Amino acid sequence: MGNLTYKGVRDFYPEDERIKRYIFDVLEKTVELYGYEPYNASVLEPTELYASKTSEEIVNEQTYTFTDRGGRSVTLRPEMTPTVARMVSSKRRELGFPLRWYSIQNFFRYEKPQRGRLREFWQLNVDLFGATDTAADAEIVEIAYRVLRAFGATEEMFTIKIADRNLLETAFDASGMTVEQKRAYRKVLDKKNKMSEDEFEKEVRAITENDPLLLIQKRDISIEQALGETETLLNRLNARGIHNVEFDPSIVRGFDYYTGMVFEIFDTSEENNRALFGGGRYDYLVKEYGGEDVPAVGFGMGDVTVRDFLETHTLLPNARATTDLYLAPATPEDVEKASGTAQFLRNAGLQVALGLKHKKISDHIKAAEKLAIPFFAVYGAKEEESGMISIRTIKTKEETTVPLEGVARIIEAL
Amino acid sequence: MGNLTYKGVRDFYPEDERIKRYIFDVLEKTVELYGYEPYNASVLEPTELYASKTSEEIVNEQTYTFTDRGGRSVTLRPEMTPTVARMVSSKRRELGFPLRWYSIQNFFRYEKPQRGRLREFWQLNVDLFGATDTAADAEIVEIAYRVLRAFGATEEMFTIKIADRNLLETAFDASGMTVEQKRAYRKVLDKKNKMSEDEFEKEVRAITENDPLLLIQKRDISIEQALGETETLLNRLNARGIHNVEFDPSIVRGFDYYTGMVFEIFDTSEENNRALFGGGRYDYLVKEYGGEDVPAVGFGMGDVTVRDFLETHTLLPNARATTDLYLAPATPEDVEKASGTAQFLRNAGLQVALGLKHKKISDHIKAAEKLAIPFFAVYGAKEEESGMISIRTIKTKEETTVPLEGVARIIEAL
Repeated sequence: MGNLTYKGVRDFYPEDERIKRYIFDVLEKTVELYGYEPYNASVLEPTELYASKTSEEIVNEQTYTFTDRGGRSVTLRPEMTPTVARMVSSKRRELGFPLRWYSIQNFFRYEKPQRGRLREFWQLNVDLFGATDTAADAEIVEIAYRVLRAFGATEEMFTIKIADRNLLETAFDASGMTVEQKRAYRKVLDKKNKMSEDEFEKEVRAITENDPLLLIQKRDISIEQALGETETLLNRLNARGIHNVEFDPSIVRGFDYYTGMVFEIFDTSEENNRALFGGGRYDYLVKEYGGEDVPAVGFGMGDVTVRDFLETHTLLPNARATTDLYLAPATPEDVEKASGTAQFLRNAGLQVALGLKHKKISDHIKAAEKLAIPFFAVYGAKEEESGMISIRTIKTKEETTVPLEGVARIIEAL
Repeated sequence: MGNLTYKGVRDFYPEDERIKRYIFDVLEKTVELYGYEPYNASVLEPTELYASKTSEEIVNEQTYTFTDRGGRSVTLRPEMTPTVARMVSSKRRELGFPLRWYSIQNFFRYEKPQRGRLREFWQLNVDLFGATDTAADAEIVEIAYRVLRAFGATEEMFTIKIADRNLLETAFDASGMTVEQKRAYRKVLDKKNKMSEDEFEKEVRAITENDPLLLIQKRDISIEQALGETETLLNRLNARGIHNVEFDPSIVRGFDYYTGMVFEIFDTSEENNRALFGGGRYDYLVKEYGGEDVPAVGFGMGDVTVRDFLETHTLLPNARATTDLYLAPATPEDVEKASGTAQFLRNAGLQVALGLKHKKISDHIKAAEKLAIPFFAVYGAKEEESGMISIRTIKTKEETTVPLEGVARIIEAL
């Protein structure tokens, strides 16, 4: 028999699934407070959806693309933006704007598995359609900020870096670069974080002698207007109580479809000092799927990087088993009796696992312990007669005897 | 530009996503009451996982199978049981038993799209590992029943039909059938519901002259013992308050791995009279992935059939937008002011969408209406000065003026 798991993807056993759910719950609650509505789509997309939209590297080297039994070329989505742009485009007449949507879904890229990079990952996508104002940009950056704060992160734990694709384009023009030089420069910029400053300068000099970043830093007159918008955005964010945000013209983001503001959030810790996630404005993508202009701004946030961030800063809570109580029948003949009692307790809101296979009470207790269920009780003829039941806290071995009607209240209190 | 959606899969716009979530929430709450813990796994599985495990028809004709960029054969999972059996097998030493697990995940089959059948569907899977007693079988059937009851279904709306693979095997042996005859007979039986009685009899006669179903109906002495177990199970279910359950030896289920009890739930309505979902016992599958015997029993329930059932019986509630309030700035200059107020209301637990792109209040109201947000308010200099805000119910056009601190309470009450 061969290896029966596929490399680079994860099994979520309950202890991991609980952490994933905790993370998703915080994400959902936070974005819903801002009026974002959930949507979803299939992981299967026709390959044409990505043609000249997503980054070339992803489409040519990293997608899972294959031919189905009917001869159609299918791709497992590598990111959400083309899908959501397609969905908005095809119903733009019926939808209300500004449209606020979010989803938490899985994505696929054929990459070498390594820390923070897997072949399947989950990602929150938050998008605001139909508004061009910097207030829309501010809202998207604000939500990215609030999501991290909702996990308990402080402003010291991360930094938001903001730039503007227009600013870079203006600087490109001022430095007289060709289309090919621009593309090469953007690629180098996107990898800036993974290089030393010397390496970066060397790569830039191989492309152009007038580094456009230097033009921006020198604040040439021609770029004053583009800078103005970024400053308005920074002011709005400061006014909303966000202080760990700064202008950094070297931020570009890998995707070709960005047209304006782009941002990235960095972990400030020494062990995990890297870009966590980001997003930006993409005003022309929806139109490319047919119809009118629908300006858009959004961000995506992967589960692997978030979990790394939360672990680095010890922000993950201990997630115990979902189940409250293991109820063991006093003897194997008492199963139906115990089953009725379990049902009574479920009606009171408790999550009750019924003991089944063991005969000895000590084996039932061991099973409850291994299953990480916090409370334990026995039910049989004695309990039926007295109407009393003893609740054992597995960890402390302490027991409290209460009437059946009091079990739910006691377990909540313990 | 070609067709940019893939045939046979679904986009979930918010109105559909809300229904899906309502259904998943009911499923999760119900199974968690029985002590089931959530798990998850990737949709990508090595193709070998399914070799001679799942039904031959599915593996040979319906899976999405392709070769990845590294030359490995990958399959998009067509069902959950091989995956969960693999997961339990590989950690069986660390896991506690009886082990109760559930998941709600998506699956892929290349089929002709039609009512109730799509190329991607979502399915609840509920499995109980490590217990062979009929009490375990009873629990699985009971949960399937409680799930439908939790949606508001009455016993009149569905019927549970139970059989036993052992019973069929015993009848097979009694009728002296060959291995090939048995396989052909099982296939015909699995399609019995889609044929007339005449068609069925004709197909059976083409295989054997001794219809084993008739042997079971005649209750030959040799099958009395196998019948005993089914009767115990029926008695247990009746004792648990379940009355719409019956013995039906013609139930087989399509998968090869079932070894004992099998069941199917049928919609009793005239428009939708068909099998909704089902499950059964599979005691040897976990062992096939390595190690010791781990007996198992479980069921799977697809989202498409459940939704059809709920719609047929008008059991689906109206799901409104998640967002509570659309807060419009009085003028475009008031955006940051309104943004601060929106944040104040979010801290009080309200889900607030900030008005952005429109200038006229009437356009904001129209946007709120199109977005299906139930409440609307304006915030500007007047509201800032007075500390009072007018909450408009979009549907009735009625307005209530309250202090800012009272908005959350009023919206909950309205």
